[in-house]
Amino acid sequence: MKDCINVGLLGAGTVGGGVLQVMERNASDIAKKVGLPVRVLKICDRQLEAMKKEFGDGYEYTAEADDVLTDPRIDIVAELIGREHPAKEFIQKALEQGKNVVTANKDVIAKFGGELLELAQAKGLDLLFEASVCGGIPIISPLKTSMAANKIKSIMGIVNGTTNYMLSKMQDEHLDYDAVLKEAQAKGYAESDPTADVGGLDAARKIVILSSIAFNTRVSLEDVHIEGIEKIEACDIKYAQDMGYVVKLLALAKNGPKYGVSVAVQPTMLPMDHPLASVNGVFNAVFIQGDAIGEAMFLGLGAGRYPTASSVCGDIIETARNILRHSTGRIGCGCFEEKRLCPPDKMHYPTYIRMKVADQPGALAAIAAAFGAQNVSLRNVLQKNRKGDEFAEVVVITHSVPETNLATAVQVLSVLPMVKKVCTVIRVEDRTLD
Amino acid sequence: MKDCINVGLLGAGTVGGGVLQVMERNASDIAKKVGLPVRVLKICDRQLEAMKKEFGDGYEYTAEADDVLTDPRIDIVAELIGREHPAKEFIQKALEQGKNVVTANKDVIAKFGGELLELAQAKGLDLLFEASVCGGIPIISPLKTSMAANKIKSIMGIVNGTTNYMLSKMQDEHLDYDAVLKEAQAKGYAESDPTADVGGLDAARKIVILSSIAFNTRVSLEDVHIEGIEKIEACDIKYAQDMGYVVKLLALAKNGPKYGVSVAVQPTMLPMDHPLASVNGVFNAVFIQGDAIGEAMFLGLGAGRYPTASSVCGDIIETARNILRHSTGRIGCGCFEEKRLCPPDKMHYPTYIRMKVADQPGALAAIAAAFGAQNVSLRNVLQKNRKGDEFAEVVVITHSVPETNLATAVQVLSVLPMVKKVCTVIRVEDRTLD
Repeated sequence: MKDCINVGLLGAGTVGGGVLQVMERNASDIAKKVGLPVRVLKICDRQLEAMKKEFGDGYEYTAEADDVLTDPRIDIVAELIGREHPAKEFIQKALEQGKNVVTANKDVIAKFGGELLELAQAKGLDLLFEASVCGGIPIISPLKTSMAANKIKSIMGIVNGTTNYMLSKMQDEHLDYDAVLKEAQAKGYAESDPTADVGGLDAARKIVILSSIAFNTRVSLEDVHIEGIEKIEACDIKYAQDMGYVVKLLALAKNGPKYGVSVAVQPTMLPMDHPLASVNGVFNAVFIQGDAIGEAMFLGLGAGRYPTASSVCGDIIETARNILRHSTGRIGCGCFEEKRLCPPDKMHYPTYIRMKVADQPGALAAIAAAFGAQNVSLRNVLQKNRKGDEFAEVVVITHSVPETNLATAVQVLSVLPMVKKVCTVIRVEDRTLD
Repeated sequence: MKDCINVGLLGAGTVGGGVLQVMERNASDIAKKVGLPVRVLKICDRQLEAMKKEFGDGYEYTAEADDVLTDPRIDIVAELIGREHPAKEFIQKALEQGKNVVTANKDVIAKFGGELLELAQAKGLDLLFEASVCGGIPIISPLKTSMAANKIKSIMGIVNGTTNYMLSKMQDEHLDYDAVLKEAQAKGYAESDPTADVGGLDAARKIVILSSIAFNTRVSLEDVHIEGIEKIEACDIKYAQDMGYVVKLLALAKNGPKYGVSVAVQPTMLPMDHPLASVNGVFNAVFIQGDAIGEAMFLGLGAGRYPTASSVCGDIIETARNILRHSTGRIGCGCFEEKRLCPPDKMHYPTYIRMKVADQPGALAAIAAAFGAQNVSLRNVLQKNRKGDEFAEVVVITHSVPETNLATAVQVLSVLPMVKKVCTVIRVEDRTLD
């Protein structure tokens, strides 16, 4: 009979340090909840001396991952170093050594989740990764347990705090993209190279993980249509507001019974009364539609030391309970469905388009005709002529149309002589329009 | 080795019927997720013939609960008949017979949860009750798993759909309480005897369950300060809006390190940018503050056939997985803390008070003096004189003050000669004011 569950920590930086603090602070409650004490036994980090100074002599320290991965006393390895390599190899080795693994690493899970989960399953071990998506928000576990009886129809998430902070700021203070990005960088909300956030890659990794679980199939990064927020201008947000919408960078995944799965990250206009519309600043949220649950939303802090530690420690507790009851690996990977991707001509939604157009008679008629020729019907049309500007701004929202028709219409419009530029194309998510 | 997990259903009405449909519709996915088929074997309901007609001959039927409770083939009993008795006795007998139990019954869990969970624990069985609070919203399981590493500081919930629908309606359409209640009854959103909903008892049962789990202590109905929405008038909602607040019936539970637990159901003014403020109509939501997670909110449909069935079936799946891995009872009751209730003089919050006051010189000064004498300082004061009315309306919001001081101030005010009536007293929940 064990008298303690031992955890080995790979990486004691922002998240790892938070995990140490939470496990220590709430140790007595956690022991009662699990039925045995759960303690961090060994810490692996390159900054050995700094770590010893910060966390004291209650732990063993090493700079070699192998000292954790092969230590027979260690039951659970918490991988918190981030990035693809060598994190993936560490997780793999831990599993091969018969150790359960908890990780916050979305890069590894989005790319190698399939093979690693299969390895864990073959070994009868837990590989849990709640913290890899939306920091503190419990979403992976609820999808695999409380909501497990549902056929999930769609997931829509605000899963990137940087872009949500930026878009909220552009909306509230009528600022331009560049100004807001600079401010976000100055405040530490955006990295000096913000590409992965503003370009949508970070969100794409998260929706790959969420949709794989929700649809029981292995979605990969290549399946995701990715668009960032770089092209969104303050005026788009203003027009959206005037028409009753807000602009959010959404990670979207839908699973239609007929045509299968579509997954995208793109700026999206949401009606103001949608539960996701009021999720502002650094908050994240995931909105789920299922055949039994109807609609549900999970909101919380998507990043940060302690929220992320909350999820990591929750996974450690779950694994510890399983170890105690000899039931590790009790919830498998669950990707039992063949992947069936929805063809682009079967995807359809309303779309917002903003154009610069020659301010001359017949221009609007020609534009309307171009849309009509592709069977794209229009729901809202707005023309704004600015004094002294030879071009007018035309904004339309289409009815729900197949993506392919819309793409052709936009192509045709771009070469019309009276259209100077198609400036912005934004998907509209509006249940009342479908 | 079992080849199937067998469920016995007590009650096949609204929720039970939904459970049957969901289990049947998604049977193949559920079997893959669990590792074995999970089927409803036997249905117990008084309306035998109607049941047979509705659900067909794929099930065994009985009108005697004992036929389910003592059937050795049955692994899981789903108790869905509601109310305290005989549901409590059925759950108890099922556990005594060695069967795992899933229930949606908040009345039983709020009142007898302690003894039943102890019995389940002693027998090493699962007794799960996700559906007993907020229908389809996963909240009990996340509290016991993903958030288990947190010290939960507070729970605030909109947990009663009837009152939330009514308050939303009063706000959006400026209608009076009586008119809205009648409409809600006509639409089936309120029962013909609405007392348990509008009076707060239904919400109280739910916060008893949630706070017991969150604070690891056995909160009981007697510990809850209960106020309903009966006294809220349309003008209170209007004044609240003018000052940047909305009025919600909140179920609140706080756990302070110094003074312990306080639990209440009462109309509460929330700032408009609070995540709970935009939860309207029949939606429910639970807002949690924890020492690691920070803030999180869970939103969804709090009632209804399929959302409730979603939670019941999720619990059935969880139990089936545990049966298969011989790990039923793996997550215990968790009420390991002695109950420590916060004394009333240690509770404090800002408060909104509306009074009818004689429209005469010195009235406001006398009122302000009465507050001051009890050390209650005022943050907002609003006086409205209606043409032709001999009384003016005075509305104040106090700074955060101890409940006892406030109660004395209100008592003193009510007997002041120039105060005709203290009409409404509403707690204000405002993090920026504390």
